[in-house]
Amino acid sequence: MTDVNFTDAGWLSREDMDAARERLPILYVDAVPVRVDDHGVVTAVGLLLRIGEDGQVKRALVSGRVLYHERVRSALLRNLEKDLGPLALPRVPPAPQPFTIAEYFPTPGVTPFHDPRQHAVSLAYVVPVEGDCAPQQDALELTWVSPEEARRPEVLAELANGQSTLLLQALAHLGV
Amino acid sequence: MTDVNFTDAGWLSREDMDAARERLPILYVDAVPVRVDDHGVVTAVGLLLRIGEDGQVKRALVSGRVLYHERVRSALLRNLEKDLGPLALPRVPPAPQPFTIAEYFPTPGVTPFHDPRQHAVSLAYVVPVEGDCAPQQDALELTWVSPEEARRPEVLAELANGQSTLLLQALAHLGV
Amino acid sequence: MTDVNFTDAGWLSREDMDAARERLPILYVDAVPVRVDDHGVVTAVGLLLRIGEDGQVKRALVSGRVLYHERVRSALLRNLEKDLGPLALPRVPPAPQPFTIAEYFPTPGVTPFHDPRQHAVSLAYVVPVEGDCAPQQDALELTWVSPEEARRPEVLAELANGQSTLLLQALAHLGV
Amino acid sequence: MTDVNFTDAGWLSREDMDAARERLPILYVDAVPVRVDDHGVVTAVGLLLRIGEDGQVKRALVSGRVLYHERVRSALLRNLEKDLGPLALPRVPPAPQPFTIAEYFPTPGVTPFHDPRQHAVSLAYVVPVEGDCAPQQDALELTWVSPEEARRPEVLAELANGQSTLLLQALAHLGV
Repeated sequence: MTDVNFTDAGWLSREDMDAARERLPILYVDAVPVRVDDHGVVTAVGLLLRIGEDGQVKRALVSGRVLYHERVRSALLRNLEKDLGPLALPRVPPAPQPFTIAEYFPTPGVTPFHDPRQHAVSLAYVVPVEGDCAPQQDALELTWVSPEEARRPEVLAELANGQSTLLLQALAHLGV
Repeated sequence: MTDVNFTDAGWLSREDMDAARERLPILYVDAVPVRVDDHGVVTAVGLLLRIGEDGQVKRALVSGRVLYHERVRSALLRNLEKDLGPLALPRVPPAPQPFTIAEYFPTPGVTPFHDPRQHAVSLAYVVPVEGDCAPQQDALELTWVSPEEARRPEVLAELANGQSTLLLQALAHLGV
Repeated sequence: MTDVNFTDAGWLSREDMDAARERLPILYVDAVPVRVDDHGVVTAVGLLLRIGEDGQVKRALVSGRVLYHERVRSALLRNLEKDLGPLALPRVPPAPQPFTIAEYFPTPGVTPFHDPRQHAVSLAYVVPVEGDCAPQQDALELTWVSPEEARRPEVLAELANGQSTLLLQALAHLGV
Repeated sequence: MTDVNFTDAGWLSREDMDAARERLPILYVDAVPVRVDDHGVVTAVGLLLRIGEDGQVKRALVSGRVLYHERVRSALLRNLEKDLGPLALPRVPPAPQPFTIAEYFPTPGVTPFHDPRQHAVSLAYVVPVEGDCAPQQDALELTWVSPEEARRPEVLAELANGQSTLLLQALAHLGV
């Protein structure tokens, strides 16, 4: 999970954000980008290749913080554009109900989700993407894999922070 | 709720279907067609004007039977095309979970939903529609109303069979 | 998936039911019985040992038909009592939204779900069970397994008709 | 929406919390307490009578903050116990998916939900309550009303911060 540059965003300095992260759960959104056919059947799932804060290259879902005074829907769109570029044409679902929530704890093992930096609670959505994706910023590459491939142990093992669990939950929810 | 011509469809004669209707719950899909903006926010809800079996003109949602050996997803698309025409470009949701189910009983008062012909259980979905809608067959007209208008008592009163309840459930689910 | 004795139930003769099964999708409910702790966390999943129509012993979820003029909620309770006995104290969820639907096709491979007898569409619910379970009728035994055990390939392999997929979908939905 | 005394809780001083509230969305849970019958049908909804920060008496749902390093499930239970007392026996749903989310903005009119103190995003759940409820702390009284009464304009008008919308969304989700 990555963030926008808070200093530029003008909401919170890096120091203040670090202080908040030690004392409050931080609200996130996670998006599983998918390609769908004419019948709405999911044909592919998009996985990012990202450089983590530790310099390691890992696969990841689209993920990011909800900012102060920002709608959840807008946070989803902003984070999708940040990772997939401005021409991705994401179709954010019309209903606000997430398909699940993911609780990332700084302590490993409390839940399947882990974030060494913070306690984050993420609202998770499946988002059909219709346009051209061009990974941005720290996202190096976007790979589309079939639902079957996405379930392979070697693919799941490349996802960091427990997002393999979230990906499996998304696939189960989609019935594929 | 209307059906395709079963005799033409070759699955069940009118007599056999009538017999089944007296002894089995019949599986339906209900779709609430919506227009959404770039953020996925619902801006309008589509209501059909339809001639009922009793000759009365009533408002209705898109609704129809699931046929033998037909996927629920295909039944949704077929019934949307039947009522809205072939250029409506419906975006059937990628996940099979309906936002609710509606139980239409032949006896009024068992549930908010009523169908004098049968016991029908309907899987209900919200479906964004992006193309041009041209009502077909017994659907006379499609009217797009804002979520606020859709909640007005005079609009709700025009919906038959308890579908006003289903429309309100859809709006509540959409958070509008 | 098994049924009550329809002749006794007085709704449909075996012959009529067989005829309907060749021409209409039949409405079912599937229930995943679970034990929960004080925090509502699922600690165990209940799997039935059942003799199938082919005489083979297989694991299964609670499953059964919705009858004519029967509420889905009542069908859930009736089928839970049929399989788990009258003292199981199931807590049927207050909302009618299923966590998914399972489409059982007579033709293998259309979906992950298969029923050689019929095209059945099942509304699937997770149902916490608080009382004592005593398997009834053709259910030989009820085994409680932990969520981790439930995911083991050898356990999943014992589930018939694709219900291993439904079990995995339930576990994903539960976040365990 | 009220909070525990953060100073006592040891996580965040009042000043630090006030500072965070000006710059981060704060994560909440909302619970709609319900009574259910043997079939899981909702027979009553619990509404609190609470003294707001402005000294006014208003109706409210159970609501409160998720603390640092606290599971959402634990936050639900803690806030239910805080408002309904230790003998309420709430049945927190086994799945983490909320039925909706409520976005409370400090600026009125952005969403139906408003909180002058902060930008709060709340995960909303329906929680069956089986025991004896004894309102605690700033909750003066708990009133059980039927689903029909809960929909009356005079009841809805007594709910503050837009929680009338959330109550209607819960009733729609419950199908009552």
